Amino acid sequence: MSELTIWAYDWVPDGPRGFVRDLRLRWACEEAGLPYRVESTPFKDRSEEHFKHQPFGQAPWLTDGDLSIFESGAGLLHLAGKSEKLMPRDPVEEAETLQWTIAALNSVEMVSVPWWFLEVSGTKDNGLTGWLESRLDHVERVLKEREWLAASRFTVADLLMADVLRVEKVRAFGDRPATESYVTRITDRRAFKKAHADQMAHFANAD
Amino acid sequence: MSELTIWAYDWVPDGPRGFVRDLRLRWACEEAGLPYRVESTPFKDRSEEHFKHQPFGQAPWLTDGDLSIFESGAGLLHLAGKSEKLMPRDPVEEAETLQWTIAALNSVEMVSVPWWFLEVSGTKDNGLTGWLESRLDHVERVLKEREWLAASRFTVADLLMADVLRVEKVRAFGDRPATESYVTRITDRRAFKKAHADQMAHFANAD
Repeated sequence: MSELTIWAYDWVPDGPRGFVRDLRLRWACEEAGLPYRVESTPFKDRSEEHFKHQPFGQAPWLTDGDLSIFESGAGLLHLAGKSEKLMPRDPVEEAETLQWTIAALNSVEMVSVPWWFLEVSGTKDNGLTGWLESRLDHVERVLKEREWLAASRFTVADLLMADVLRVEKVRAFGDRPATESYVTRITDRRAFKKAHADQMAHFANAD
Repeated sequence: MSELTIWAYDWVPDGPRGFVRDLRLRWACEEAGLPYRVESTPFKDRSEEHFKHQPFGQAPWLTDGDLSIFESGAGLLHLAGKSEKLMPRDPVEEAETLQWTIAALNSVEMVSVPWWFLEVSGTKDNGLTGWLESRLDHVERVLKEREWLAASRFTVADLLMADVLRVEKVRAFGDRPATESYVTRITDRRAFKKAHADQMAHFANAD
């Protein structure tokens, strides 16, 4: 069996702790029961070797034997290929899971992350606010009608969407009860709590 | 054989013509030689049926027999499952293709689309400019060293990255010769030209 290794920063400042994206991969492995190791890469001095694995100079990336894959979304889909717990094998349910996984990355996060970035940069009049509101309202409308995004059960799409929506400023932006209940329920899962605690301990060890 | 149908708007204003994302799905089908039909959904009055297929009220979505999938990125990965021309089956090459497909959506487009949105909204001091510059510089560095993003040949990752990078304001932002040559080369492909011409004709028919 190939060995899964999640490559995470060795250290990050307090702010992003509990939110750095190696958490997504840890969480997915925990949900699926896939054995994995975590290795560190320097946060402060990013080497040529780092850029070979992650050309944008970010973390995480995932190795699986000889294979190396960056982008947490791509890592999640790679892990989903190993476990039905993350993605059903029925073609219709698989398509539902895939569309909501990409929606988290390209319909919600494509607005929420730049909006967040402008907020923390101290922008006075955030030009993305109306757009974010519209995207979150669409998600709320969907979550009012169902417990899970795809396949009537927990999938990698919920893992990713909940991770996108739990970002503090995004979560505090407006009052969307179905979304809030969804985020609470999904981050109450044992696998999330384990991944979160492990990431916090990983960075605390480096202090 | 199941029947692929791309659902596109019946009409859009002049500005987005040639850029609406049904082009990505048309292009992928043309590259792969997959037979497909195009159906229209109203741009002006978006029905409940539209939101059932695309909960953000956008287009395109793709149907494949009984299966319906939204998000152009998800549609591309679905089509890639049908054709090695879009995504190799060797696990290492498949991972390379997947990571660059997601990078186009979540590392480049996550910055370039909101940046573009702020530009066209007439924002005076676009707070995403430095971030976009950094992302495009990382892509330039990669494209200086290779002809294709993954697997040493054209894949769906190139289709998507070129489509992200060819947006006029993004393409005109800074001087990145390797990126410019990449976009020119990839949009010179027969399949792109066919998809582009077909989209332009589709919207012109509705005028």
